[in-house]
Amino acid sequence: MTLSVYLSGEIHTNWRDEIMAGCADAGLDVAFSAPVTDHDASDDCGVAILGTEPTKFWHDHKSAKLNAIRTRKGIMDADVVVVRFGEKYKQWNAAFDAGMAAALNKSLIVLHGPDHQHALKEVDAAALAVAETPLQVVQMLTYVQRGTLPG
Amino acid sequence: MTLSVYLSGEIHTNWRDEIMAGCADAGLDVAFSAPVTDHDASDDCGVAILGTEPTKFWHDHKSAKLNAIRTRKGIMDADVVVVRFGEKYKQWNAAFDAGMAAALNKSLIVLHGPDHQHALKEVDAAALAVAETPLQVVQMLTYVQRGTLPG
Amino acid sequence: MTLSVYLSGEIHTNWRDEIMAGCADAGLDVAFSAPVTDHDASDDCGVAILGTEPTKFWHDHKSAKLNAIRTRKGIMDADVVVVRFGEKYKQWNAAFDAGMAAALNKSLIVLHGPDHQHALKEVDAAALAVAETPLQVVQMLTYVQRGTLPG
Amino acid sequence: MTLSVYLSGEIHTNWRDEIMAGCADAGLDVAFSAPVTDHDASDDCGVAILGTEPTKFWHDHKSAKLNAIRTRKGIMDADVVVVRFGEKYKQWNAAFDAGMAAALNKSLIVLHGPDHQHALKEVDAAALAVAETPLQVVQMLTYVQRGTLPG
Amino acid sequence: MTLSVYLSGEIHTNWRDEIMAGCADAGLDVAFSAPVTDHDASDDCGVAILGTEPTKFWHDHKSAKLNAIRTRKGIMDADVVVVRFGEKYKQWNAAFDAGMAAALNKSLIVLHGPDHQHALKEVDAAALAVAETPLQVVQMLTYVQRGTLPG
Amino acid sequence: MTLSVYLSGEIHTNWRDEIMAGCADAGLDVAFSAPVTDHDASDDCGVAILGTEPTKFWHDHKSAKLNAIRTRKGIMDADVVVVRFGEKYKQWNAAFDAGMAAALNKSLIVLHGPDHQHALKEVDAAALAVAETPLQVVQMLTYVQRGTLPG
Amino acid sequence: MTLSVYLSGEIHTNWRDEIMAGCADAGLDVAFSAPVTDHDASDDCGVAILGTEPTKFWHDHKSAKLNAIRTRKGIMDADVVVVRFGEKYKQWNAAFDAGMAAALNKSLIVLHGPDHQHALKEVDAAALAVAETPLQVVQMLTYVQRGTLPG
Amino acid sequence: MTLSVYLSGEIHTNWRDEIMAGCADAGLDVAFSAPVTDHDASDDCGVAILGTEPTKFWHDHKSAKLNAIRTRKGIMDADVVVVRFGEKYKQWNAAFDAGMAAALNKSLIVLHGPDHQHALKEVDAAALAVAETPLQVVQMLTYVQRGTLPG
Repeated sequence: MTLSVYLSGEIHTNWRDEIMAGCADAGLDVAFSAPVTDHDASDDCGVAILGTEPTKFWHDHKSAKLNAIRTRKGIMDADVVVVRFGEKYKQWNAAFDAGMAAALNKSLIVLHGPDHQHALKEVDAAALAVAETPLQVVQMLTYVQRGTLPG
Repeated sequence: MTLSVYLSGEIHTNWRDEIMAGCADAGLDVAFSAPVTDHDASDDCGVAILGTEPTKFWHDHKSAKLNAIRTRKGIMDADVVVVRFGEKYKQWNAAFDAGMAAALNKSLIVLHGPDHQHALKEVDAAALAVAETPLQVVQMLTYVQRGTLPG
Repeated sequence: MTLSVYLSGEIHTNWRDEIMAGCADAGLDVAFSAPVTDHDASDDCGVAILGTEPTKFWHDHKSAKLNAIRTRKGIMDADVVVVRFGEKYKQWNAAFDAGMAAALNKSLIVLHGPDHQHALKEVDAAALAVAETPLQVVQMLTYVQRGTLPG
Repeated sequence: MTLSVYLSGEIHTNWRDEIMAGCADAGLDVAFSAPVTDHDASDDCGVAILGTEPTKFWHDHKSAKLNAIRTRKGIMDADVVVVRFGEKYKQWNAAFDAGMAAALNKSLIVLHGPDHQHALKEVDAAALAVAETPLQVVQMLTYVQRGTLPG
Repeated sequence: MTLSVYLSGEIHTNWRDEIMAGCADAGLDVAFSAPVTDHDASDDCGVAILGTEPTKFWHDHKSAKLNAIRTRKGIMDADVVVVRFGEKYKQWNAAFDAGMAAALNKSLIVLHGPDHQHALKEVDAAALAVAETPLQVVQMLTYVQRGTLPG
Repeated sequence: MTLSVYLSGEIHTNWRDEIMAGCADAGLDVAFSAPVTDHDASDDCGVAILGTEPTKFWHDHKSAKLNAIRTRKGIMDADVVVVRFGEKYKQWNAAFDAGMAAALNKSLIVLHGPDHQHALKEVDAAALAVAETPLQVVQMLTYVQRGTLPG
Repeated sequence: MTLSVYLSGEIHTNWRDEIMAGCADAGLDVAFSAPVTDHDASDDCGVAILGTEPTKFWHDHKSAKLNAIRTRKGIMDADVVVVRFGEKYKQWNAAFDAGMAAALNKSLIVLHGPDHQHALKEVDAAALAVAETPLQVVQMLTYVQRGTLPG
Repeated sequence: MTLSVYLSGEIHTNWRDEIMAGCADAGLDVAFSAPVTDHDASDDCGVAILGTEPTKFWHDHKSAKLNAIRTRKGIMDADVVVVRFGEKYKQWNAAFDAGMAAALNKSLIVLHGPDHQHALKEVDAAALAVAETPLQVVQMLTYVQRGTLPG
């Protein structure tokens, strides 16, 4: 049973690497996908390829749509969508991905610190698990695939 | 052609009333729905009906799920989902609703001020219109239903 | 906003009447449906109409399928599926209906006493609310439709 | 034609092993999946990974949801869902899985002894086969894949 | 609960009238639909409106497609599809409608005499009821809507 | 049986009026919808409501998306989608609507003159009828609803 | 591009072998599936595995349902469903499969002699091709996969 | 992450080869599919295999339907559908494919020169990217798969 896991959300810490390394160390059969996490490339990809725009709105629009080709495939192909909310920024794209995942009946895992608990209650309510650390995600994927618990 | 419109998001200003009044004044045939906008009721409905919880997480969880009965019906029955992002707060539930609406192929209208333009680029990219004022929403619904433009 | 509510499960107490009466008293706009609750008719409808069977299995089979015409329409047309588990009997049809409701993305409310808590954990985990009394269901439907809380 | 088969339900006897061994002996091309059948791990996985809960309800809730990541993938990826009801316990999760399988148009095989015939009539009515022994399931999968009947 | 019932199949006897009259006499709330049952009109509608064809194949093709506008709406809008197989003719369109109804998760009732039992076993196996007379269909619709049995 | 009919495509002749008048004269129960057919309003609606754009591409883009709110509802709510191709212009939006209608399993009627026969072969191949005149569409809708043929 | 092709219908001639051999000779990348074509096994599989039945109806019913596990997987996994109608018998299961294939948006090819043309007009109208010989099916699959025509 | 890309539309220039060669040079993991681009074969395939037709309409019809077996599989299996509109011809099949792709939630890329900008505004409005050159498509697929930008 290969698990397909999409890692959505915060791009300023190395949480994706921790999860992927942890699963690799455990020898799990998981296929990960993720958005482009190079912030500048993600912001400018649209105009870099398709030509400049006179306004910031359409500059952003072209890039957001180009990124959507990747993110929608990632979400649609996934069994599990992990969405991490970091400490800073609005991160509305993360919540948007969570809403898509929920509507598409993907198993949703939300990853965030306790400070965001109240603000994320609607997202958490749609999730099958709410974790605080990447290690917990590794442990859950290990359990889901093998039935074994840590320790 | 009755249009079913769900008004999601910010609950601290009277933007829903403005849209509903504007459409009523114009004599449009629109059926509006919305989440419960009484902030205290929305936060506490779960424990008020189903019993208290020892932790804030499950207190919030019960309420968020009870509210989801209403919000999901609203979104699933809608032709058009309008999501407003206000000046303050994280408003992740608004972005979550937008993601659900997009995945369910609802026509999405996003309503926000220029300050949020960059942070909302992924949500805006999934929308059929991005507006700044409730009046613009009334004008769009008027155009969609009747084909007439303002002025 | 008319709510369509299907009342599935236990047929030996008058919980459906309590919910319907409570909603009627509150003046809610709810359309209820339910399985046939006449136990003998439900058990024998197949052979009564379509002819006797030499074995109990096919006797039951014909009735179960005829009842399914009603129950599936009820579930498929519903916004909310309330499933009650009573004190006695296996009630596997109730859990089966809950599984169908979950797979069809209906809002699921489970109604049962504390004794069944552990045995129903998977069903409860798929629900948007777990209640113990019909009154709580009335209060939830009132909240979902009107946004008002009891007392 | 690889058949994907999910083995749901009773975890106290070795019926899964019998079916898997029988299909292996016959050289069939079947990919099996199943829930975690370690009862303690299944009951406690949620709190073991995500932290303890003060109440039994949420203790169970966290585990049931974590297990759902595995069971829903199993059911959604399956061509055939086999659900076994044992002699004891309520086994509502088994009936719930059967309901999900039926709603998702999976081919459903129910496996139970004659004592449960009447109580399972609604579940059996949704099935494409009702068997009493694991051997019969092996024989059916053999027939489905190869068109050959037992000796 | 209005039941939508599509009456497919044999057009040489008045079985539809019997069912409709029986349901009307019983005061049921059923909305019936059916294919065009005027055999000549059904055969020639395509060329009568859209122009003659030099070959029988395309003559038939144009009519079959025009009739499909009506039959597909009937089937797609139905809760229950009743398909009757008469004594004569190939009636492949009836079996085709039954296959569509099954794939679209409609409740299927098959109506035929005992002579066709073996030849219709696959169709019957997909049905929720197999009846021999229009009266039985009336009795089933009465039971489904009201829960009452004949006599 | 109310038929919902969406009238897509060419906006330079009064073919919609002819169909609607013909159906009204025949007393049919048909609910028509259509895109906004005021060419200037359709081209400029986006900027008229949501603000001017510095480039023609985004000017057109905003209008096309606003119009899509109406056209998608029209197509999604329709039983029958009639798409007319006129003598002039590219009319790619008409073919696009036809593609959407086909993918959504709507009954498709294509209306065009003989000059376009070869160029429209792929669209015609997805249709249930290919007509040349609005009168033929009226006659087909009459037949679909009543089973009667002209003359 | 592997094509998945399900070969439904008549089991008394070797038409499946002709198609499979022709595609093998042409070196096409096609994965074929088919129902069990051993007539006796197909008729008796249910009771052979699950136990005898006192009536012919349920004898047939059990076998038909067991066969459905195979046929539904075949149809659901297919890109193309070829349905052959032979000279004899009612072959309602073939028309039923065609109806399922059409409702599931599979590309349908119907294979029959000219005698059945009128009786199969509704089935043919739902097909993307109507052929008379297995060779034509081989030629079509060759064209679909490679773009080359015979001769 | 293998990307499946369907290349629809104009068949008179070598744009498909440019995209495929560019992606091969970049070492991307992309599986391309496309319609049959041999114009004569595409026009005549139906009659070449299934027999001549006395009218041009049915000649074209048979070929268009046979081609649809390939094009629908291509679109349905694709993650990304690229539709190119060339300088000449009506190309309604290209716009039809774009409409199908949009309705099936495929990521749509439209490729056309500036002359067609206004006429294609509805198609462009449904796309995630609008490009002018095959190189831009290669650059976008490179970005989507690897996150790297040109230069």
